[in-house]
Amino acid sequence: MADLPVSPLAPASFPDLPEIGGLRLATTAAGVRYSGRTDVMLAVLDPGTSIAGVFTQSATRSAPVLDCQEKLGGDPASGAAMLVNSGNANAFTGSAGSGSVGRICAAVAEVANVPAERVFTASTGVIGEVLPDDRITAKLAELNDNLTAGALHDAAEAIRTTDTYAKASTSTIEVDGKPVTIAGIAKGSGMIAPDMATMLVFIFTDALLDQTEAQTLVSQLNDQTFNCITVDSDTSTSDSLLLACTGASGVDVAGKTAFANALHDIMLDLAHQVVRDGEGATKFVEIQVQGAASPDDAKKAGLAIANSPLVKTAIAGEDPNWGRIVMAIGKSGAAADRDKLGIWFGDILVAEQGWVAESYSEEAGAAYMKQSDLVIRCDLGIGDGNATVWTCDLTHGYISINADYRS
Amino acid sequence: MADLPVSPLAPASFPDLPEIGGLRLATTAAGVRYSGRTDVMLAVLDPGTSIAGVFTQSATRSAPVLDCQEKLGGDPASGAAMLVNSGNANAFTGSAGSGSVGRICAAVAEVANVPAERVFTASTGVIGEVLPDDRITAKLAELNDNLTAGALHDAAEAIRTTDTYAKASTSTIEVDGKPVTIAGIAKGSGMIAPDMATMLVFIFTDALLDQTEAQTLVSQLNDQTFNCITVDSDTSTSDSLLLACTGASGVDVAGKTAFANALHDIMLDLAHQVVRDGEGATKFVEIQVQGAASPDDAKKAGLAIANSPLVKTAIAGEDPNWGRIVMAIGKSGAAADRDKLGIWFGDILVAEQGWVAESYSEEAGAAYMKQSDLVIRCDLGIGDGNATVWTCDLTHGYISINADYRS
Repeated sequence: MADLPVSPLAPASFPDLPEIGGLRLATTAAGVRYSGRTDVMLAVLDPGTSIAGVFTQSATRSAPVLDCQEKLGGDPASGAAMLVNSGNANAFTGSAGSGSVGRICAAVAEVANVPAERVFTASTGVIGEVLPDDRITAKLAELNDNLTAGALHDAAEAIRTTDTYAKASTSTIEVDGKPVTIAGIAKGSGMIAPDMATMLVFIFTDALLDQTEAQTLVSQLNDQTFNCITVDSDTSTSDSLLLACTGASGVDVAGKTAFANALHDIMLDLAHQVVRDGEGATKFVEIQVQGAASPDDAKKAGLAIANSPLVKTAIAGEDPNWGRIVMAIGKSGAAADRDKLGIWFGDILVAEQGWVAESYSEEAGAAYMKQSDLVIRCDLGIGDGNATVWTCDLTHGYISINADYRS
Repeated sequence: MADLPVSPLAPASFPDLPEIGGLRLATTAAGVRYSGRTDVMLAVLDPGTSIAGVFTQSATRSAPVLDCQEKLGGDPASGAAMLVNSGNANAFTGSAGSGSVGRICAAVAEVANVPAERVFTASTGVIGEVLPDDRITAKLAELNDNLTAGALHDAAEAIRTTDTYAKASTSTIEVDGKPVTIAGIAKGSGMIAPDMATMLVFIFTDALLDQTEAQTLVSQLNDQTFNCITVDSDTSTSDSLLLACTGASGVDVAGKTAFANALHDIMLDLAHQVVRDGEGATKFVEIQVQGAASPDDAKKAGLAIANSPLVKTAIAGEDPNWGRIVMAIGKSGAAADRDKLGIWFGDILVAEQGWVAESYSEEAGAAYMKQSDLVIRCDLGIGDGNATVWTCDLTHGYISINADYRS
C-alpha cells in the first residue's frame, strides 16, 4: 500500500526534544518487516531509574505486554532498558511469542549490562506472525555502541508503523527552584497493514520519583488522557505506556503539583496527537459532558457519542446532526432525562429541555461544523459528573485504509 | 438524496401474505414528510386480541415508545388498534411529542371504536421535528372506511422510510390438528435522511394466547433474534416490536412449542432481513461463538466482533483478517484465554491454541471471504456458553449514506 498523506490535523511542527539526564538511545534498521527505514529503538536508563506503566486491558494482549506487566515491580537500583520494534506486534503468536521476548530481553541484558528482569519490550505491527527476533538481537551490539542522549527524535521515527507523522511532546518546569525535564514520544492510529492497531507511548524524565509513586501518578493521569481518546472503539492487543524517571535532575517531585500537571499535559498532548492521526480523520472533536449523575456516567455518555458511527459520519459530512447525539446519549447506559438535556456546538446552544432551542438555526450549526477542530458540549442536567473525551470523524479514508486492499 | 439501489443481499422475492382473522388494515398517503407514497398505516384488531411488545432500551426514547410501554398491560376485551407513520420519529420533541401521541390516539379511538388506552402508535423518521399530527388525524376516517384483511403488503410498504425493500415473513402451522397463522412486517436499516435509525416490527397471528404469556414469549424470543443483530452499534430512540394475537383461529397456543418455534423463525427471518438491508451492506455475516464461560460472555464476544469497525471493514475488503477477530474478542470484556482460542471461516480452521493453524492458507481464507454470506465461528475453549449474532460489513456505501450530504 502506498504511503498515506500526512494527516490534515497534524501539528504544524515537531518539537525540539531535549536530552534527559540518565537516558541514552539508539535506533537502527533491522528489517523486521519494513525495508529502508529504522524499525528498532533501544533506550538504556541509568541505575536509579524507576519505571511505571499502563497497558491494554485486552484479554488477548501480546507477549511483550504480558512480560512488561510482570516486570513493573522490579528493583530500580540496577538500571533498566527498553527495546521497541515496529513491523510485527508479536501478538497471538502462541508460545513462540514469549520465547521471542525472552531471547530479546536476555540479549539486551547482556549488551546493556542490566538485569533481564529490567528490560521492557514493546512490539507493534502485524498480529499472528512470529517475530523474527534474530534480526533484532543481531543489531544489539551496534545499537549499544551508538547510544546517545540526543536520539529521541530518531526514536519517535523508529517506532512509527503507518503513522502519518512522528509524535512527541516535551516540557521543562521548575520544582523547588530547580529544572525538571519531561519528554515523551508516541505512535498510533495510522494503520496501513491490516493488523496494526497499536498505541505505544514512552515518556522520560530526569525527575526523582520512586516506582510506587510514579505508577500511581501515571495510572491516574492515564484515566484522564489516553483512556479518554477513541478513534474507532477498537482496542489493541499491544497498547503500552512506559514512564521512566531517571532522577538525574536530583529533584524529588513526589507530591509536586507542578510535575503532575506537566506530565498530564504531555500525556494529553500525545493523546491528542494520536487522535489527530486517526485513520482518515479530517476533524478533531472534543466532547464535553457535564451534569451527569457521576463522572463515570459522564465518560460513558462521552464515549458513546465519540464512538457512534452515525455521529462520526455526520461530523465527516459537516452535518450539525444533534439528533444523533441524543441517540448516542440514549444508548450509552448513562442515566439521562430527555427533557433535561442541553447540547451546544461550540458556543451555539442547539437543544435544551428535550427539544431544539428556539435561538438555534441550522445555518449557524452548519457553519460551525466546517471547522476542523470542534467542541460538542452536552449537559445532562441531572447531577455534577463531568468528563471530556476526544475523537475524530469517520470518513471514506477510514474505509479505504482498512477495506480497500488485501493483506 | 436519490433513492438507494435495492440491497444486493435482499431476499429473492416478497412472500405471499395471508389474511389474519381478527385483523384489518389500511394505508394512505398523508404527506407527513414524503410525497407520492403511502406513509401511514392503521391496523384494527378485534375484541379479544392480546398485545405484547418490546421496545428500545434508549434513555432518550421517543414519545410513542413511552406511550406504548404504559399501555401494554391493558384489557384485551375491547379490541385494539395500531397507527404507524413514517417520515417523522416524534422523538426529542419535548412536551409536543406526547401531545401528538395523545391527539392521534384519541382520534383513532373515536373512528375505530376502541378505547384510547388500547391504541398503540409508532413513528419513524426524522428526530427533533414536531410531528404534524393533524395530517394524520385528517386521514383517519378514510383509513377506517378502507380497512381490509388483505392489506398487509401495503402496510409493509407504508412503514418503510429508506429501506431498500419491504420486509415480511409468514408461517402457518398446525397446533392440536388446527391451523394457526402468523405474519410479520418490519422496517429498518435503510437511512437516507440524517436522523433515521429506527426498527419497527409488527407481528399478527390468529392464535389464542393471553397477554402475559404473549409478553413472556416475545421478550424471550426477542433476546435470540432482534437483540442479536447489529448494523452499526447505534441504538434507535424508536425501536418497537408489537405482537397481536387475535385468537380468531380459536386455537390456544399457550405452552405449544410449535407456535414458539414458528414465531421464533418469523422474528429471526425479519431480523435477518433488517441486517441484509444494512446501510451499504455487501456481506451478511453470522458470528457463532461457542466455548465461552457463559451465554452472556458468548454474546458479548459475538457483538464485539460484529460491531468492530476493523473487523467490518476487513470483511468489506474480503480480507480474511483473523487478527482483528482476536483483537475484538480481547476487548469484549468476555473471559478469554489467548492460547485456547480457535477460529473458523466457514469450515476452514484458521487459528487454534493461540496461533494460526498449520493447515490454514491465506488463499483458502481469501477465497471464502468472496462469498456474500459468511459464517465466522470462534471457540473460546473455556466453557459451554454459546451465542450467535448477525451483522453486515462496513463499506464506503455506509459513509456515503450517512456523511456525503447535508440534512
